[in-house]
Amino acid sequence: MTVNAPHNLSTDIDDFAAIKAVTGLIDARLATIIPSSQTWPARLHEAQRHALLSPGKRFRPLLCVFVAKGAGFEGDAAIDVGCVAEMVHAASLILDDLPCMDDAELRRNQPTTHIAFDESTAILTATALLNRAFGVLSRLSHVDAEKRIELVDLLSYAVGSKGLIAGQMADLANTDANASISEIERLNTLKTGALFDFSVEAAAVLAGSSAGQRSALKDFSHHLGLAFQLMDDVKDTLMSDTEAEKTVGRDIGKATILALTGSEAALERLSGYIINAKEALTRAELSNGDTLNSVLDAQFSFIRT
Amino acid sequence: MTVNAPHNLSTDIDDFAAIKAVTGLIDARLATIIPSSQTWPARLHEAQRHALLSPGKRFRPLLCVFVAKGAGFEGDAAIDVGCVAEMVHAASLILDDLPCMDDAELRRNQPTTHIAFDESTAILTATALLNRAFGVLSRLSHVDAEKRIELVDLLSYAVGSKGLIAGQMADLANTDANASISEIERLNTLKTGALFDFSVEAAAVLAGSSAGQRSALKDFSHHLGLAFQLMDDVKDTLMSDTEAEKTVGRDIGKATILALTGSEAALERLSGYIINAKEALTRAELSNGDTLNSVLDAQFSFIRT
Repeated sequence: MTVNAPHNLSTDIDDFAAIKAVTGLIDARLATIIPSSQTWPARLHEAQRHALLSPGKRFRPLLCVFVAKGAGFEGDAAIDVGCVAEMVHAASLILDDLPCMDDAELRRNQPTTHIAFDESTAILTATALLNRAFGVLSRLSHVDAEKRIELVDLLSYAVGSKGLIAGQMADLANTDANASISEIERLNTLKTGALFDFSVEAAAVLAGSSAGQRSALKDFSHHLGLAFQLMDDVKDTLMSDTEAEKTVGRDIGKATILALTGSEAALERLSGYIINAKEALTRAELSNGDTLNSVLDAQFSFIRT
Repeated sequence: MTVNAPHNLSTDIDDFAAIKAVTGLIDARLATIIPSSQTWPARLHEAQRHALLSPGKRFRPLLCVFVAKGAGFEGDAAIDVGCVAEMVHAASLILDDLPCMDDAELRRNQPTTHIAFDESTAILTATALLNRAFGVLSRLSHVDAEKRIELVDLLSYAVGSKGLIAGQMADLANTDANASISEIERLNTLKTGALFDFSVEAAAVLAGSSAGQRSALKDFSHHLGLAFQLMDDVKDTLMSDTEAEKTVGRDIGKATILALTGSEAALERLSGYIINAKEALTRAELSNGDTLNSVLDAQFSFIRT
């Protein structure tokens, strides 16, 4: 989005306010979905709150809420579905950070869950978050049972053997420095893309989008997932722990686009993904495309600095 | 069940044949729910098959199938819902056996998943099984969306903060040798009972049971869960690894009914639980109460030897 006229500037300010307001709603809802840290067993709920409520950009929920709204869905259920994506994301981070996986100590600028608590608590916390995510979908208010069951099915697909878990398995085995760019993109599509796909497609289900709109939105989330994972790889390689707000350098020895092409080409590729995502967004003809572009710009701002 | 007349003897043989036939259907369905071990990522599917398809008594699925049938449900979906309970059970065993939890090497007479594969694969395998369980519920054929969503909700409840995961958290923290019997029973109700409750209540949902029947069935599964966990504690204390077909002696230092009351009183209590379960079963007025009694007798046979 270019800022070249008072009209656009005020749109930017409106978008910023809308994003901030929705982020506040998401954070408030996340805080009520998980029992209080006084509820027995307290340690389980403390750990869930530690992992889930730590400051984050809530990118996946924002996508879900704004896509649902732009496609014509007005209900509060979009907030809940967005929270589901955030819960599964938090669960996946807990597991990725375990000693037997990436062995990371810092996440979102705080100790990872197994460091702040212990390994068994971390594993049960991740399991509880995934489990609760399905529970939230089953109880979405003012959404008919057919749609709720479609969302359960979508989530199970996104997490399973063709999504997050498969991506994580492949990532742990990723030591093939000769992997091609398309192989790496396939891995990134699973590891990161699957949950972006869920967030966006779930919004389309809520809104009852047409087949054409769903197809454009799939293209949108696909390129967004690729962009996001590549940005993550850039952070892992070029930033310090403090700048990235997490333990970096875990990708050393892994096949990444950055390792394969160097940073300049990787940043160019990243810009290409974002352009593709924005083109697909235009094709989806949402009523709030500008706001969604602002959501994207906020997320990818660091590559412009 | 007493064997004192030719009529009852032939019923026993019929029951035995029915249990064997249904076990075969369950095993066959479990084998198709998880992708083949050639499907990418192969290691994830090999590990799921290792954990899920190892020989087991399939007690939870048998309960689900026979209760559903006895309450008047004729569809194949009961097999699938039973498999869901078995998948979640297998997932919980994988996690319980991890080095950071019970640190067990043997389960169902074969190496535990983290020994046969590795820790990260074991954790992702357990997560995948839980996730797939929800996916199976979302796609039950010939079951309307309202019931499918009720089953998703039931499963999430059984696994979550008032079920399996809470029970496992509490069990890991269980070092209070002064715990009372009622406190231990509460823990056992969560750790083991929750999945029995799911198996039986899900069957009642499929069958559209009356409130009265559901209430009796809840009482049935509650006492069954208590009986089963106490039997497990007896095995852990009195049997060798080979007899129990798993690593035993993990309960040493934990508060169990066996440790609190001694083995004679514990076995008496176990018989009491089974009697209560069978009384509740009679009250549920299923059409196949005798067969279910045989399912129970097969499961608890060792306490009669």
